[in-house]
Amino acid sequence: MKIAVIGSYCTKFGELWNKSLYDLLAESQIGSLKNANILSNQIDAIYTGNMCSGILSGQLHLSSMATEILNVNCPSISVENACASGGVALRQAILAIESGTAEIVMVNGVEKLTDLDSTDITSALISAGNEEFEHFIGATFPSLNALITRAYMHEYKLTRKQLAHVSIKNHKNAINNPLAHLKKEITIKDFSNATIIADPLTILDCPPISDGAVTLILSSEKFAKNWIKKNTSKKIVYITASTQSSDTLTLSSRNMLTEFKATQIAAQKAYDMAKIKLEQIDVVELHDGFSITEIISLEDLGFFKKGTAGIATEKGLTQLNKKISVNPSGGLKAKGHPVGATGISQAYEIIKQLQHKAGQNQVKNAKIGLTHNLGGCAGTSVIHIFTGE
Amino acid sequence: MKIAVIGSYCTKFGELWNKSLYDLLAESQIGSLKNANILSNQIDAIYTGNMCSGILSGQLHLSSMATEILNVNCPSISVENACASGGVALRQAILAIESGTAEIVMVNGVEKLTDLDSTDITSALISAGNEEFEHFIGATFPSLNALITRAYMHEYKLTRKQLAHVSIKNHKNAINNPLAHLKKEITIKDFSNATIIADPLTILDCPPISDGAVTLILSSEKFAKNWIKKNTSKKIVYITASTQSSDTLTLSSRNMLTEFKATQIAAQKAYDMAKIKLEQIDVVELHDGFSITEIISLEDLGFFKKGTAGIATEKGLTQLNKKISVNPSGGLKAKGHPVGATGISQAYEIIKQLQHKAGQNQVKNAKIGLTHNLGGCAGTSVIHIFTGE
Repeated sequence: MKIAVIGSYCTKFGELWNKSLYDLLAESQIGSLKNANILSNQIDAIYTGNMCSGILSGQLHLSSMATEILNVNCPSISVENACASGGVALRQAILAIESGTAEIVMVNGVEKLTDLDSTDITSALISAGNEEFEHFIGATFPSLNALITRAYMHEYKLTRKQLAHVSIKNHKNAINNPLAHLKKEITIKDFSNATIIADPLTILDCPPISDGAVTLILSSEKFAKNWIKKNTSKKIVYITASTQSSDTLTLSSRNMLTEFKATQIAAQKAYDMAKIKLEQIDVVELHDGFSITEIISLEDLGFFKKGTAGIATEKGLTQLNKKISVNPSGGLKAKGHPVGATGISQAYEIIKQLQHKAGQNQVKNAKIGLTHNLGGCAGTSVIHIFTGE
Repeated sequence: MKIAVIGSYCTKFGELWNKSLYDLLAESQIGSLKNANILSNQIDAIYTGNMCSGILSGQLHLSSMATEILNVNCPSISVENACASGGVALRQAILAIESGTAEIVMVNGVEKLTDLDSTDITSALISAGNEEFEHFIGATFPSLNALITRAYMHEYKLTRKQLAHVSIKNHKNAINNPLAHLKKEITIKDFSNATIIADPLTILDCPPISDGAVTLILSSEKFAKNWIKKNTSKKIVYITASTQSSDTLTLSSRNMLTEFKATQIAAQKAYDMAKIKLEQIDVVELHDGFSITEIISLEDLGFFKKGTAGIATEKGLTQLNKKISVNPSGGLKAKGHPVGATGISQAYEIIKQLQHKAGQNQVKNAKIGLTHNLGGCAGTSVIHIFTGE
């Protein structure tokens, strides 16, 4: 598998009160066309990942909004897999090229969360879980993840301090990301006074409520090889694996709370598909939906043995240019988490890294990168592997 | 293109107060596996079309619900293109097989509309249009279609009587469909006393609010050819074209109200892809979102010249076994319109027709069938062409 990324654009992430869903999508789509130096009528299909626009903005059918913005009539598809909507949309865009029905595909992730109060938003986000058996009886998404955290702490002796270092690292990384939502360093001391969201998770373990949009332009390898002749200043990044796996919607239906089967399956398939070994990966953007999610995902992806990712994080092994550079963008925690955009914004960061355009957070000699995007409590896991030229 | 349909199942459509979203999806998924005589672990991917579950039931991530029901871990994707969610999900399932990443794919359409009152449902349905420029200023989906109807009546002298014959035919057809929501004949007289929904559209011009689910099992031609050897009593139906096109989300952005560009483009591409002429089509399930939508769609698909579908309908040319058999299932008007399920339920009917198992509504010697599914005011149009063996 070899799919080219020939263009990308990401809006600022944050509380963008002056921008609507339409504004964000338009900025991102038009920015990506400019970045790829192509015209809208060259696009064969558009995929748009979004989770909450129906519930929060009364707006569905973003696929049609996307074509209205560009004044095109190509097939346009909206994809919703909770917080993995972006990653799943990216995978569908790739399949469209692989099916032979499209040569150039635009893929958007967009989310507008901040027009309502946080109770409404929390209600919207738990729609990623089971409404009848979780939300209806009072569970929220943070409370389900608090259960996971408690189980992991009990089973593997994870300390509060180890866990805190996930967010400390991610906040530190975000300072150098010009598009990040939260650009503020935090320290271990901040955790002692931090508001509890769902014990033991504090506000410093949870991502912010962000707005944002991001777009990639993908093409067949054949198209990209011609395109680069006219765009000699550009650098193509290739996607060499795209895998997805699923698990139960309902947390109580699982055998285990402390690992995510969907990631384990998708990761193994991705390494096989890209024909690489784990050790070859230079940089990772993974789904730190909560601080605990980064710990579990590091193990599910194979970077650390079960039960050791907490110690490794505290030791700094996931910081930039250490054992494995994890979330150089700042991750969901600090870059921000406009849910439907998240999976594609991970790809945006990896592309920058592999083009060696990541500025102060550049991972040295980065050649191979991985993105990992989860939906719900890992009911969906999507993995992509990227290589520079 | 040649994709096999090896299994199908459709629940009863209607006000199914005793069935949840989960119940409907489970009945349909399990029914389809039984119909195809395969096991859940043979499924390589699942696609689920749904529009309103987030807004009306607080439940997104149906992709994960679908894998939980079957206890499988394959890739599972939720697709939302308003009322075209089902048709678009079907097309994505086909692309998955064509990409070579899947051999057997399950595709679901499911919708649970009746747990709230009709004001909430009307609000949910207008999310298919532009929230900022249509819903916010008071437009509903029926009112936008009333504008279209007025424009068409003015331009082509369509009479109230001609328009009524769309619904009269569809109600008549539904009487012999065991799964239909409304099984009641209506006459031209009923229109004079019918409640006005949005003038000139009466309640007899609008589809009912329905619950329902439907599932197809698709496979590669290669798999189907082996499968049929062990399932000699079954009849394979093949999909020979799958096309989609888009138009503006906002009705006021169009040049024309009385024809739908997205259908015209998708139809031409579909006839080319299936290598057939219009005259070879024996049976059509088209998207009669409102009575006017059937009139316009008959012309967009090419069955009648612009401005003449009203007269043709009144003359009975779209009745069973006349010029072209349209909506033998009863259409959205009388079979019912569980929005995300509609596009796939159209395919379900065409498959029955091409297997010559459509009972009293069987179209004689049906060999080639077409489905046409719209989202919003035709912001999305999806067309599939099917052939019997």
